[in-house]
Amino acid sequence: MAKPKAHRQNRQYDDDDEFTTCNWMEYVLVVVLSCSLLVAALILVLFWTLYSGVGYGWREGNFEKQFNLHPTLMIAGFVTLSGFSMLLYRISRCCRHIFVKLFHTFFHILAIPCIALGFYAVFDSKMLQSHNHFYSLHSWMGLVTMGMFALQFVFGFFSFLVLLCCEGATAACRAAFVPIHASFGTTIFMLAVATCLTGLTQKSSKLYNYSEISKKNEVIIVNALAMVLVALGIVLSYVVNRHSLRANKGSIISERL
Amino acid sequence: MAKPKAHRQNRQYDDDDEFTTCNWMEYVLVVVLSCSLLVAALILVLFWTLYSGVGYGWREGNFEKQFNLHPTLMIAGFVTLSGFSMLLYRISRCCRHIFVKLFHTFFHILAIPCIALGFYAVFDSKMLQSHNHFYSLHSWMGLVTMGMFALQFVFGFFSFLVLLCCEGATAACRAAFVPIHASFGTTIFMLAVATCLTGLTQKSSKLYNYSEISKKNEVIIVNALAMVLVALGIVLSYVVNRHSLRANKGSIISERL
Repeated sequence: MAKPKAHRQNRQYDDDDEFTTCNWMEYVLVVVLSCSLLVAALILVLFWTLYSGVGYGWREGNFEKQFNLHPTLMIAGFVTLSGFSMLLYRISRCCRHIFVKLFHTFFHILAIPCIALGFYAVFDSKMLQSHNHFYSLHSWMGLVTMGMFALQFVFGFFSFLVLLCCEGATAACRAAFVPIHASFGTTIFMLAVATCLTGLTQKSSKLYNYSEISKKNEVIIVNALAMVLVALGIVLSYVVNRHSLRANKGSIISERL
Repeated sequence: MAKPKAHRQNRQYDDDDEFTTCNWMEYVLVVVLSCSLLVAALILVLFWTLYSGVGYGWREGNFEKQFNLHPTLMIAGFVTLSGFSMLLYRISRCCRHIFVKLFHTFFHILAIPCIALGFYAVFDSKMLQSHNHFYSLHSWMGLVTMGMFALQFVFGFFSFLVLLCCEGATAACRAAFVPIHASFGTTIFMLAVATCLTGLTQKSSKLYNYSEISKKNEVIIVNALAMVLVALGIVLSYVVNRHSLRANKGSIISERL
């Protein structure tokens, strides 16, 4: 029976070696590309507000200023912070898993006030203008995404942090939850991207109907932002599904839950 | 050494038993839900055209009739047929894997004329009206999705069917391609759903600006169709990522490539 064991050891060594020589390039490329796109989305939405010359504000009589908080905060919360949180969890290779989990939670906790304030900014702005609420597809999708985000956060917090208080007894239960949490996390990110795209489509359609050239040029910024979000959807789903990019594949299972 | 082997056999038996008793419910639920949503999307888009009272046509002077072919054929090709193809591949448990692959290819081959005609319907309709082309986010996303679909089809056809002519020599190569093909397949489906949602948002925004009540009621059908697409995105990504729903997990690897 010694031969197969030795073979397995060699195989393990080959796998490790294979990562160091071949997959490092893919790993570095994916990390750089994902981080660049996550930051680019935030920079583009800030640049869009500056370019439009409106800026930000709260109840200053200019509803457009208050409305501008909505895309900026939603992209910051649902895309940049949540995206960094997912990316960090999947690819972090430098510290203990419990710290990776805490950072994953911390980034999501930072996302919550962004999302809440982003939602309240547009809700309050529409209330002040006595506009109709929740008729558009974008708002329906936004509500579904926020509901799923809240459920996922509460479920994840209790399952993977609170249940650690009795680590041994809950290991099997947490192990069963991992793929469900991962699958729903990716789905929520994709849904958030799709919701952003419907919102940007609404804005883009409105801007295209203006006669001013500056408004028509804004369409290019909005579409560029949308294409960055599309690229993010493609790259992040690749990162999450690509087994070879996962950190510490060989670590003990109870450490990974 | 007899004990661990017996233990493994029992374990295998437990797993099989676990599927038959517990996971069958989930399996049936997911299959029924996915099929219902895939058919519902097609029925809703047909119902929408009937409800609007415009119908279908080709170069009859009524551009709206020709335009109506676009959402119907795109949803039939990119969502219903592609969705059934993915679902069939993941969950089929009744026949040999080569037949499953051929059915998977067949459904995608059926999707190609739908997509091509759906694209040409709107392209030709805009050309006849001398409208601007490819300025909207929806059209940019549509081009990206069609390009990725074409690449994925050609890549999949050569890698998993043509390379079977020298099965033994290409096994390792095909095995390496499987996760990439699966990951990009899901991404393209999600991108197609997001593109449909941006198109429906454009239509919904236009309809809401009409003064007629019938046009405003059309918004409800459009939004319901969009929510079915959102539900499909959630359910199908769950099916694809859920390991326990995969058919023939224990089969020989060369049979699965």
